[in-house]
Amino acid sequence: MDKIARKIINLPKRLLVEEPLNLYSGVRGMFRDSHKRAGLPPGQPFYTGVRTDIPFSISVFSYSATDIIEKENISIEELKALSDSEKYLWVNIEGIHHVDEVKSICDFYEIHPLTMEDILSVEQRPQIDESENYLFIALKMLQFDQENRKTLGEQVSFILRENMVITFQEKKGDTFEAVRVRLRAGKGRIRNGGSDYLLYALIDTVVDNYFVVLEKFGDELEEIEERIMLEGRKRDFSMLYELKREMIHIRRSVWPLREVVSKLERDDIKLVKKSTRVYIRDVYDHTIQAIDSVETYRDFISSLSDLYQSVISNKLNEVMKTLTILSAIFIPLTFIAGVYGINFENVPEFSWDYGYAYFWGLIIVVGGLTGLIFKIKRWI
Amino acid sequence: MDKIARKIINLPKRLLVEEPLNLYSGVRGMFRDSHKRAGLPPGQPFYTGVRTDIPFSISVFSYSATDIIEKENISIEELKALSDSEKYLWVNIEGIHHVDEVKSICDFYEIHPLTMEDILSVEQRPQIDESENYLFIALKMLQFDQENRKTLGEQVSFILRENMVITFQEKKGDTFEAVRVRLRAGKGRIRNGGSDYLLYALIDTVVDNYFVVLEKFGDELEEIEERIMLEGRKRDFSMLYELKREMIHIRRSVWPLREVVSKLERDDIKLVKKSTRVYIRDVYDHTIQAIDSVETYRDFISSLSDLYQSVISNKLNEVMKTLTILSAIFIPLTFIAGVYGINFENVPEFSWDYGYAYFWGLIIVVGGLTGLIFKIKRWI
Amino acid sequence: MDKIARKIINLPKRLLVEEPLNLYSGVRGMFRDSHKRAGLPPGQPFYTGVRTDIPFSISVFSYSATDIIEKENISIEELKALSDSEKYLWVNIEGIHHVDEVKSICDFYEIHPLTMEDILSVEQRPQIDESENYLFIALKMLQFDQENRKTLGEQVSFILRENMVITFQEKKGDTFEAVRVRLRAGKGRIRNGGSDYLLYALIDTVVDNYFVVLEKFGDELEEIEERIMLEGRKRDFSMLYELKREMIHIRRSVWPLREVVSKLERDDIKLVKKSTRVYIRDVYDHTIQAIDSVETYRDFISSLSDLYQSVISNKLNEVMKTLTILSAIFIPLTFIAGVYGINFENVPEFSWDYGYAYFWGLIIVVGGLTGLIFKIKRWI
Amino acid sequence: MDKIARKIINLPKRLLVEEPLNLYSGVRGMFRDSHKRAGLPPGQPFYTGVRTDIPFSISVFSYSATDIIEKENISIEELKALSDSEKYLWVNIEGIHHVDEVKSICDFYEIHPLTMEDILSVEQRPQIDESENYLFIALKMLQFDQENRKTLGEQVSFILRENMVITFQEKKGDTFEAVRVRLRAGKGRIRNGGSDYLLYALIDTVVDNYFVVLEKFGDELEEIEERIMLEGRKRDFSMLYELKREMIHIRRSVWPLREVVSKLERDDIKLVKKSTRVYIRDVYDHTIQAIDSVETYRDFISSLSDLYQSVISNKLNEVMKTLTILSAIFIPLTFIAGVYGINFENVPEFSWDYGYAYFWGLIIVVGGLTGLIFKIKRWI
Amino acid sequence: MDKIARKIINLPKRLLVEEPLNLYSGVRGMFRDSHKRAGLPPGQPFYTGVRTDIPFSISVFSYSATDIIEKENISIEELKALSDSEKYLWVNIEGIHHVDEVKSICDFYEIHPLTMEDILSVEQRPQIDESENYLFIALKMLQFDQENRKTLGEQVSFILRENMVITFQEKKGDTFEAVRVRLRAGKGRIRNGGSDYLLYALIDTVVDNYFVVLEKFGDELEEIEERIMLEGRKRDFSMLYELKREMIHIRRSVWPLREVVSKLERDDIKLVKKSTRVYIRDVYDHTIQAIDSVETYRDFISSLSDLYQSVISNKLNEVMKTLTILSAIFIPLTFIAGVYGINFENVPEFSWDYGYAYFWGLIIVVGGLTGLIFKIKRWI
Repeated sequence: MDKIARKIINLPKRLLVEEPLNLYSGVRGMFRDSHKRAGLPPGQPFYTGVRTDIPFSISVFSYSATDIIEKENISIEELKALSDSEKYLWVNIEGIHHVDEVKSICDFYEIHPLTMEDILSVEQRPQIDESENYLFIALKMLQFDQENRKTLGEQVSFILRENMVITFQEKKGDTFEAVRVRLRAGKGRIRNGGSDYLLYALIDTVVDNYFVVLEKFGDELEEIEERIMLEGRKRDFSMLYELKREMIHIRRSVWPLREVVSKLERDDIKLVKKSTRVYIRDVYDHTIQAIDSVETYRDFISSLSDLYQSVISNKLNEVMKTLTILSAIFIPLTFIAGVYGINFENVPEFSWDYGYAYFWGLIIVVGGLTGLIFKIKRWI
Repeated sequence: MDKIARKIINLPKRLLVEEPLNLYSGVRGMFRDSHKRAGLPPGQPFYTGVRTDIPFSISVFSYSATDIIEKENISIEELKALSDSEKYLWVNIEGIHHVDEVKSICDFYEIHPLTMEDILSVEQRPQIDESENYLFIALKMLQFDQENRKTLGEQVSFILRENMVITFQEKKGDTFEAVRVRLRAGKGRIRNGGSDYLLYALIDTVVDNYFVVLEKFGDELEEIEERIMLEGRKRDFSMLYELKREMIHIRRSVWPLREVVSKLERDDIKLVKKSTRVYIRDVYDHTIQAIDSVETYRDFISSLSDLYQSVISNKLNEVMKTLTILSAIFIPLTFIAGVYGINFENVPEFSWDYGYAYFWGLIIVVGGLTGLIFKIKRWI
Repeated sequence: MDKIARKIINLPKRLLVEEPLNLYSGVRGMFRDSHKRAGLPPGQPFYTGVRTDIPFSISVFSYSATDIIEKENISIEELKALSDSEKYLWVNIEGIHHVDEVKSICDFYEIHPLTMEDILSVEQRPQIDESENYLFIALKMLQFDQENRKTLGEQVSFILRENMVITFQEKKGDTFEAVRVRLRAGKGRIRNGGSDYLLYALIDTVVDNYFVVLEKFGDELEEIEERIMLEGRKRDFSMLYELKREMIHIRRSVWPLREVVSKLERDDIKLVKKSTRVYIRDVYDHTIQAIDSVETYRDFISSLSDLYQSVISNKLNEVMKTLTILSAIFIPLTFIAGVYGINFENVPEFSWDYGYAYFWGLIIVVGGLTGLIFKIKRWI
Repeated sequence: MDKIARKIINLPKRLLVEEPLNLYSGVRGMFRDSHKRAGLPPGQPFYTGVRTDIPFSISVFSYSATDIIEKENISIEELKALSDSEKYLWVNIEGIHHVDEVKSICDFYEIHPLTMEDILSVEQRPQIDESENYLFIALKMLQFDQENRKTLGEQVSFILRENMVITFQEKKGDTFEAVRVRLRAGKGRIRNGGSDYLLYALIDTVVDNYFVVLEKFGDELEEIEERIMLEGRKRDFSMLYELKREMIHIRRSVWPLREVVSKLERDDIKLVKKSTRVYIRDVYDHTIQAIDSVETYRDFISSLSDLYQSVISNKLNEVMKTLTILSAIFIPLTFIAGVYGINFENVPEFSWDYGYAYFWGLIIVVGGLTGLIFKIKRWI
Repeated sequence: MDKIARKIINLPKRLLVEEPLNLYSGVRGMFRDSHKRAGLPPGQPFYTGVRTDIPFSISVFSYSATDIIEKENISIEELKALSDSEKYLWVNIEGIHHVDEVKSICDFYEIHPLTMEDILSVEQRPQIDESENYLFIALKMLQFDQENRKTLGEQVSFILRENMVITFQEKKGDTFEAVRVRLRAGKGRIRNGGSDYLLYALIDTVVDNYFVVLEKFGDELEEIEERIMLEGRKRDFSMLYELKREMIHIRRSVWPLREVVSKLERDDIKLVKKSTRVYIRDVYDHTIQAIDSVETYRDFISSLSDLYQSVISNKLNEVMKTLTILSAIFIPLTFIAGVYGINFENVPEFSWDYGYAYFWGLIIVVGGLTGLIFKIKRWI
């Protein structure tokens, strides 16, 4: 699309500089290469995300109430060695497009091939699944990209085993940094709450990030509202449309979360201790709050669309009125002028002494009357 | 936004003099500073409202069926001393942005950190939570600000313990004054109904205030309806839009209340006596009524939007019709006048004896015919 | 609003002669004076309707299978005397804005203050409430006011006690006249069916009246449909809007009724005999039918709105097309006439022998061509 | 409505030749004469349909697995005589506006007055009701009237007793002819399946007719779609509106059927044998399919409305564009011609040698430039 | 429809070259010839699809964990012979419009006539039905026709018996090819998972194909979005409309699938082993995902409609503004020129020395002022 075309239709720059594909990714990614995958046997490892050059990395926290060991970028063998320890273990894996490494880890921890497939299908709905010896949870992590002013989504998968949490991330991210800081500090329940409490702390962090995204979203909505009220220009609707699209995206991440957390809280999941459940109840309340706000924002966006339409049709009305008033005043006058431009021989007015004055008098009287009518009709 | 810009787009003054942020507060406040809070350990005291300069104040009613003591502005130590008494106690706390004081009181009464966090997160959904030794309820208190003609919301939290009610308010308010008057008078069940009855009386007062707000809202709606019918001007839609926005706000406060009161009535909550339940059932009915009206108002607002659109498009139609009739009558006449302004040498009409009379005759006949056609088409 | 203003905006008379307040009463009445009531102790007698000068009146039917006594306008003392009798009793009370009298009766029959409050709050949702020794039902009675062509609503409350029915009405009305006639005649089950059967007969009469209202409503809808199809004038939409508003009103009365009657039929209410339940089931079916029709009418109204919009935009299209065709034909012709009005010295056409004929030939050719193009484009 | 008025608003003939009342009958018939019926005691025989001159007729099939007797137009006495037989009996009654005859039959078979009232109230919702010794079902029978191209509805009531089915129809109809043919032929289960199987066969026939109606409906929808795509004329929307209205009608008949058939299949109805249930399950699936299609058609109609609106507003756009382009080209040219029509004495251009050529040159240059601008803006 | 008509209304070629019937087939096919079928006894074999010339063909896989025999185009007798074997059997039947052959097979395997009717009614809703000795499932198979760029649907029916799966297809297709390849290779559970696992594998393949279709659908949606943003032409809405229609089609196939798979997983179906259920759970998750995406696409389409409307009305606004500005500038100027074309005798300006210059000065001043006003109003 060249610059001229864009200018003619006044598209906001923000809408065009990014490739549209990214915006849809939450929806379409799920089907990426699905024509290749169709018919493959189940449990086949197949990464469905966009391949990046992020290296594969494993980082580990091995901790008990009293001490803590932190290791970064260890190899799979080192990881396996660590797993025998008596301590609680948190394994964080980044760069899951390295399918072979992920498979090797999953095999070691006896994770079912179908679960592994779910970990690699990064555009899934948030879900929870309890197996005999582990609990699997997949969530969407939302983040607001300050620079491009758009929302990014990433899948995070959690495996909760006896005394162990494994997290799978697509990219390097600092979302869990807050948990790491608390682990290192060792205050509160974080170190002696067990692996289920760590799981809670991680999920809580993810949900907290939703609030950050929604805060930004609210800012944008407010900005756009003010713009529409002020001018109601074409690009405002394009921006509104884009927010609508992002909202659809966010909804798909937040709504299924309720089910996941609710299952985690209510069901008789043996890996989650009763003492942790009161905290999960808190996450559940936060999730409801996020859903509530998403729905409220939807209502706002819909009201804003109506407002925009009303602003636009009011503008059209004003334009038409201007044209009509102007035409209505000048059309009769032009007609009169036309009449006295005729070339008949015996037009008596032409030879009147005050013919020209009479002409202008006529013009003023007719023009004044038209104006008066509009005044009475309250058009002007 | 300068005055000229405002004038051009005819925004109602009311919409602009207040900062838009306040209107959104019900939705966005929840996320205020959420980028700071993200990742904090749970149960951290963090006030999420707008910080004001209201001083922290504790007022206490210590009463039994026979006598009553009322104290204002007591210190936390005095409060602690009072708590040993055999009497019923109502502690009202105002200015909860004084986080330390609130924390100190919560600790003294063994309130769970997560509950305390909920008390301080003043933009939560209304909720109810039963703990081992207390019952926690958070509601929205709505009030109509007569001066600025808008609805204000504030969170009120209730803690019901054995023989004791604690209420937490953001600001000083006179909503509970009616209950105080009844306590002082000591008539009815208010003094010997127990703490659960006091809780009921306080919640009832909050719900009664919803009705006051909805009464005002109905007044505004009626006013706006009459305006649209009369004129259908641009600013009417802006006002309608604003009402829509307030309605979204009110809905978010009222709907979850149903769940809260319903739980209070139905569940086997040990702190609420059976004799009090018949009164809570009454509050429940009021809540349903409030919800019912909110939904009805929504329907009205939506009908009004349609009416406005129809008024506007009728106006456009009328404008266009006026223009068309005027043009249709004068365009042929102007053409005729133009024809006889030509400078050809041998135009026979020019030298006719009654050429000028013939010209006017033609004008009148053509003009009359056009008028007749419009008459038949019922355009005029 | 003066007559001129009304004329300009063409409002239907019907919409303006009545005060808008009445139309809203179903919604807003509930909040009438709610700023006065807020904070009052529960069970306070407070009439919420519009105060009229209808006198307070008690009329009584005391009957058994074999004989019947009918008394009108008796005093409260006489009523109390009658209550000891072995016969079935139907007490009908009109003019409940006489709060003291109502209170005196309620106290005598040991009706709970909260129930009394509900009787006097005449804008409540239809409800049913079972107490230890009586059953309370509140319904909306709808009536079509033939003269003003609008729907009126009134609350009727029923108290069913052992061998006794008390009915509370706001105004004098002849709705129950049919039941009175049947009582006097003494045919059918009416006299020996017990008080629960009488209650059924009274409710059945109320529901039958809904059908009368809906019949009228359907007539109006049909009339308006024909009008829109014929002309699609501005006032049609105003009438449609008004029907929409009335429909909202009716819906609020009819929907909750389902719940009330369903409870009456299904629940284990000890005051209602099993033999009466088959009749209540019949009322229930009628209620469902009424709801069904209300929803269908809603669909029709919404379809009619669409139709109206389509008629209006078709009209605009036609107007614009007329203008465009007219302009398109005359604009080039006027231009040609203008060209030959120029005063250049050496315009060869001016001195041609058949200059004037040539001029008219040109006009006819150009005009004909424009017409031909429109013919091909199927615009004319 | 005279022919001229109709022509002006271009109403489709089909919409006007029939009285609108018929179309509404599905909704309004229910309330026909409801002002007369209001207050009548329950179980009063009152025919609510349109009275026709169809004679009352009873036809009977008395059959067993081995032989079959068919009688038409028998009297009520003959019918009573037949009822003692050991054989299965199917009594078909047509012309139920003959209230007395219907009442006499109902009394003979001990049918409850309320059920009889339901049989005569021919505009009821489809329903099922189990009494002690019979099962009552009321359905809507839909038929497509080929000539007037509209859907007709009629109520059919079924009474299932031990070894006996009674059907009540408003008019003579050939819907059940297919069942009669199968009965006479005696193949399949029809003769030895028992009365419940016969009931199934009859209901199945009714549901099969829905499919015929929906097939026709789909044809109309397709036709209208093509028309809108081709032209988008005013009458297309009127037809669409009419289809919408018919769809509302059909929905009201089909939706409640699901409940009826589902009850018939699932509930423990003693008159229906287990072996028949697998067939009723099949009818249930058909009903779901009909509902499914009705909802899909609704979606289509709504999409078509949008399409129509879009076609119309595109047309308006095109009209406006034509006008604008034409005006934009000629307005400046006419101005130039006007300028050189002035009568000032010293206009140098007038006496130029190539004044006239210059004039035309100017016209061509200005006209060409305007055209070029539109070319660049892609308007032409 | 001839080429000229098409050109005038600018219909996209794609919409017209195909017969509209095909697009509707998903909805209307169900009713094809329903007027012929109405009243037929149940369980009558009647093929409801479009008759093609595809030959009837049976292909068989007879396999155990260790060996496998594959046969194509065998006769019914050969099939019957194979059925005695101890091995697992998969019978795939193509061309079910050969009703007699299908009937013969169904009879041999003791399939109930109603089930056979369902197999042949190829436009049914997806369904599952458990009989005494087999399980019947009917699904829709969606495929994207690359050439015509549209979605094709076909019904596939599955019969699961002890050690046996029978599949019925309308046409020859390569959808199951992937399963055949896996069977031949014999890796994974496919050969020793039993017949229920094979059933799972086949259903999984069908669901995988939905994702391929949805991927294509997303591509189209994206393309159309870009087009609307760039130009918003008429044919874009036609394409959007077509996508809407296809979406309705797809929804009808995908939604009921959830119920089918859910029943397969949850219910106590004896033919499905517990070990297979974990795989069916996986298919269930995929189905939910497909539904989720379908709903999301619906939201997108609806947003796109709004966007298109907004683009169109912005365009109209722009056109009107251009016209108004142009008219507003030239109308007064043309009036002035007209004035000085009058033929009065004593117009003083005519004989002024600088009369002509004065004229042009006037023109420029008036034109400039008009331009300035528009500049201030920000119209230009």
